[in-house]
Amino acid sequence: MARKIIIDTDPGQDDAVAILLALASPEEIETLGIVAVAGNVGLAQNAKNALKVVELSGRRDVPVYAGCARPLMRELVTAEHVHGQTGLDGPDLPEPKLRLEAKHGVDFIIDTIRREPEKTVTLCALGPLTNLAMALVKAPDIAARIQEIVLMGGAYFEVGNITPAAEFNIYVDPEAAQTVLKCGAPITMMPLDVTHQMIGTPERVEAFRAISNRSGEAVAAMLGFSERFDLEKYGWPGAPLHDPCVTAYMIAPEIFKGRLCNVEIECASPLTRGMTVADYWHVTDRPRNATFIRSGDSDAFYALLTDRIARLP
Amino acid sequence: MARKIIIDTDPGQDDAVAILLALASPEEIETLGIVAVAGNVGLAQNAKNALKVVELSGRRDVPVYAGCARPLMRELVTAEHVHGQTGLDGPDLPEPKLRLEAKHGVDFIIDTIRREPEKTVTLCALGPLTNLAMALVKAPDIAARIQEIVLMGGAYFEVGNITPAAEFNIYVDPEAAQTVLKCGAPITMMPLDVTHQMIGTPERVEAFRAISNRSGEAVAAMLGFSERFDLEKYGWPGAPLHDPCVTAYMIAPEIFKGRLCNVEIECASPLTRGMTVADYWHVTDRPRNATFIRSGDSDAFYALLTDRIARLP
Amino acid sequence: MARKIIIDTDPGQDDAVAILLALASPEEIETLGIVAVAGNVGLAQNAKNALKVVELSGRRDVPVYAGCARPLMRELVTAEHVHGQTGLDGPDLPEPKLRLEAKHGVDFIIDTIRREPEKTVTLCALGPLTNLAMALVKAPDIAARIQEIVLMGGAYFEVGNITPAAEFNIYVDPEAAQTVLKCGAPITMMPLDVTHQMIGTPERVEAFRAISNRSGEAVAAMLGFSERFDLEKYGWPGAPLHDPCVTAYMIAPEIFKGRLCNVEIECASPLTRGMTVADYWHVTDRPRNATFIRSGDSDAFYALLTDRIARLP
Amino acid sequence: MARKIIIDTDPGQDDAVAILLALASPEEIETLGIVAVAGNVGLAQNAKNALKVVELSGRRDVPVYAGCARPLMRELVTAEHVHGQTGLDGPDLPEPKLRLEAKHGVDFIIDTIRREPEKTVTLCALGPLTNLAMALVKAPDIAARIQEIVLMGGAYFEVGNITPAAEFNIYVDPEAAQTVLKCGAPITMMPLDVTHQMIGTPERVEAFRAISNRSGEAVAAMLGFSERFDLEKYGWPGAPLHDPCVTAYMIAPEIFKGRLCNVEIECASPLTRGMTVADYWHVTDRPRNATFIRSGDSDAFYALLTDRIARLP
Ligand SMILES: [Ca+2]
Ligand SMILES: [Ca+2]
Ligand SMILES: [Ca+2]
Ligand SMILES: [Ca+2]
Repeated sequence: MARKIIIDTDPGQDDAVAILLALASPEEIETLGIVAVAGNVGLAQNAKNALKVVELSGRRDVPVYAGCARPLMRELVTAEHVHGQTGLDGPDLPEPKLRLEAKHGVDFIIDTIRREPEKTVTLCALGPLTNLAMALVKAPDIAARIQEIVLMGGAYFEVGNITPAAEFNIYVDPEAAQTVLKCGAPITMMPLDVTHQMIGTPERVEAFRAISNRSGEAVAAMLGFSERFDLEKYGWPGAPLHDPCVTAYMIAPEIFKGRLCNVEIECASPLTRGMTVADYWHVTDRPRNATFIRSGDSDAFYALLTDRIARLP
Repeated sequence: MARKIIIDTDPGQDDAVAILLALASPEEIETLGIVAVAGNVGLAQNAKNALKVVELSGRRDVPVYAGCARPLMRELVTAEHVHGQTGLDGPDLPEPKLRLEAKHGVDFIIDTIRREPEKTVTLCALGPLTNLAMALVKAPDIAARIQEIVLMGGAYFEVGNITPAAEFNIYVDPEAAQTVLKCGAPITMMPLDVTHQMIGTPERVEAFRAISNRSGEAVAAMLGFSERFDLEKYGWPGAPLHDPCVTAYMIAPEIFKGRLCNVEIECASPLTRGMTVADYWHVTDRPRNATFIRSGDSDAFYALLTDRIARLP
Repeated sequence: MARKIIIDTDPGQDDAVAILLALASPEEIETLGIVAVAGNVGLAQNAKNALKVVELSGRRDVPVYAGCARPLMRELVTAEHVHGQTGLDGPDLPEPKLRLEAKHGVDFIIDTIRREPEKTVTLCALGPLTNLAMALVKAPDIAARIQEIVLMGGAYFEVGNITPAAEFNIYVDPEAAQTVLKCGAPITMMPLDVTHQMIGTPERVEAFRAISNRSGEAVAAMLGFSERFDLEKYGWPGAPLHDPCVTAYMIAPEIFKGRLCNVEIECASPLTRGMTVADYWHVTDRPRNATFIRSGDSDAFYALLTDRIARLP
Repeated sequence: MARKIIIDTDPGQDDAVAILLALASPEEIETLGIVAVAGNVGLAQNAKNALKVVELSGRRDVPVYAGCARPLMRELVTAEHVHGQTGLDGPDLPEPKLRLEAKHGVDFIIDTIRREPEKTVTLCALGPLTNLAMALVKAPDIAARIQEIVLMGGAYFEVGNITPAAEFNIYVDPEAAQTVLKCGAPITMMPLDVTHQMIGTPERVEAFRAISNRSGEAVAAMLGFSERFDLEKYGWPGAPLHDPCVTAYMIAPEIFKGRLCNVEIECASPLTRGMTVADYWHVTDRPRNATFIRSGDSDAFYALLTDRIARLP
């Protein structure tokens, strides 16, 4: 039976691929809705990008909501230097005809979790965790009803990207991340430790292009654009695909390996703000609140992606 | 013309008096609604207390909403040691027959500010600032529409009460307080610096009792109970009335004296968490974001209170 | 019997008065030596100023040492805006003929405490606490041998001066202050709370001048210069004398009133760095490590000062 | 020409090997003295261990000093769980007949650097950085005279060992580490990133034993004992040799590869205290103050060690 999910996202090239993977996999994933959040770029643009991706997928039945336009406490930091001015540079996607739902994304999350049977809805978070934290603070009763939170964010052995200690999604709203990590629901984290293993080599990009559908072409163009920035920095043969780890995990969790441990968010110090301090080696007795994924089978990951993107228009 | 306000509150004996003062003063204050927040005690009890106070006042037309049951990021700290197990120990108020509105308090704040003409609604905050911060994060557009935020919270020369450096309302949710203080709306703060001048001496308590209405009797009982704790600590002849400074300011701002300066909230250090760092002496060039009230005319304050409570049933 | 002291200082007009008071009071105070520290201005200038003050007093038998030129961890912050370019602007004191001792001031402190009988030497600290902390780290055995540490520094109800939360001496080297406050020796603090009560009104300045000795004239000139800065800020009729509270306490402790309580130094947060968090109201169960002086009899203080300065050349 | 060094150390099995390597290599390294510091165990035991190692080496001409018994600001944390109750469990070394020098280790460092020609003395630090920081604060002029500081400490991609974010040497005295890292002298760091590559496999341990001298036997016994703790944790075939990376670098720097970058020490937050935040990817514009070694040739490293230990008695 398909697992019901809500995708919370700031698309983002890799968010787009993650969404396409979900929408291409209805046997395993029933996408109840998509909620945009401020992150890679501002909320309005992210919401528009979400609509574009839904249209690209042909799954116009999936509703899209706008969530929060700013973090809980801090000024918004964005990443146009990575994702381009539109947040989704690379493919040439048409202006969306779909419209955003009227309801606020935070309320969509709350209402859906309250309406669906207990522990049947998973939150797939691909951006800063503002919307999830807002839902948990506005309606703390939902924590016990969430099946799982699977999120892309953080880094431990792979250290940070936006700062020497912090990964972007967590850095943007560390207080929100801390609220989510303390909520008591089962949590699986896809940090840079695993996403940096998912390199879009030229061969893998070519495989998307070779599908010869518009989605495959768009994915190829996204991979071609995204993270140019990282290639120079790390000397990689291609860009890593971060966010699709989340939706791939919903379909094929056996691709990933990790460990249940304590993860806390550094919210105090300016130097290390947004760091995900994972007690991977269990050197403290802090409660084990998250499964921290450390590695993945990148061939299986890209095979899954190529297979599913091929099912789309 | 009466100023329109929303009261955000965790009643609390002094919250109750603040609410009664507002509801007794329709010429100056139009109370659009009351929103409860977790603080002195848990949300459910605070919401119930708000209903009791509205019934006591006879103003059953004023709607009461429940807001957030927990702070943005931290575990809730409560103050039963100050306010008693019900949060409103002292007077013997009947179980309320009024019911809470269905809408969430945060949404009531957002919807009201969006509906009323720009800059005509003032938020009077008498507890932790969770609801206000949630509204500002969920709907950042309201910041520019708020007429003023008048809040009881913080301390500077009067240092802290719940810790050596922090006042209770701010300490409970410092991240929310920081969000409110940075929102750009005009802010007036009533810190312990002024509220500790508003001592309910035996003569002043007696004056409430002498009104011989049920509200005056209740106020006398509240003052008799509340802050027993402080009397020993500070050697005062009576309990201070904190929260009524906020609603008194809405009626008679000339009672209070303060200074526009920068106020930041300490959110980082465990030692000083929740401190309101007021640049009262302008030794930094940080932006001046709040009017920090430092003193008040306590005779005028109690005269106003007694006069208005006398108008109630 | 006279109490043996070492004066650790960054003179500073008020340091100078504090030193003169000690040197004028051999019945109560045996000054074993004076150690300069970086603070109001750099170490070399502070050491020179110490020599000038010793020469002014006529007590050329008192040795002067140079201590540390920088704080434990941070870059030195100085206060020429308060004390003038020489750190001792105001009086026209001749270049000193006395020379500094060769030994490092930190070693003078260690060696003296080890040499003198246990618990017979008091450290009178009038500047940042770098030298004391260095001595305690280099030779932890001395902590149990110190009779008392009496220091000017910190603020609680009087908040900060160099920042909204911190007093200058502590702010310059908060880590040193924390080391001193945790060392286990008896500690008496003279914070701004008391020193701001010791205002050098025109009458009091005139009384120094009326002594008609060179020391009285110099003190009058120091008071005339120092803290011009504060007069505008606080609207006072004269400058406060901070550091002489320390040496006055050694002679006439009955002038001062305070309370034994916990005092911790904020070393973590940029916003509140250097704050002396005094648990004056005993709201925590932290250990009571310092007597925090909150008030003093300013008439008795100035009478003592005038009387003793009159004994000098 | 041999490079002149001072070894600052808290022996420690791996410190012992590092010292033996230096003392066995007079062509490349002239060891001016050894200074003990509190760390793995208390100062007295560490100083005794240093004497034992010097006697083992037969180099009784090398003077040993005791430095500081406690960190700058914090309480001492020790690591008997790793190194055993003596700090040097494993080999059965006789009680030393050598005596400690009378001079304090901090003064030995200062005096030596001032006496020797400018930029001819390197400080090799194998423990917490208290002594080095104390010397730099007591005598800031030495910073410009130091040839290089080569230290074992910190971690970045290898995260922490004593906490999830901090390596032991830095964690014990983070303020000292920050003082050292900001001193302006050239710095080379040997973090866990490289030391964890230097695994003492059974073959390598056997090679020490096969030397058939008392030093080789002792090294084999040290490696046999040390870091049992880590073997379980990391699943390694043997214990890593941390501190010898420092002295090996003095002899054969070509074994190691790293990058000049900014390194700051987290001193503020309890969660990440003692972390070495290395801007290895140059994502900030902070000044590049340390060469952060990330990898080394472990075969060459062990070959060097075995060769040199064979020269000892
Ligand atoms: Ca994303
Ligand atoms: Ca309240
Ligand atoms: Ca001074
Ligand atoms: Ca060591």
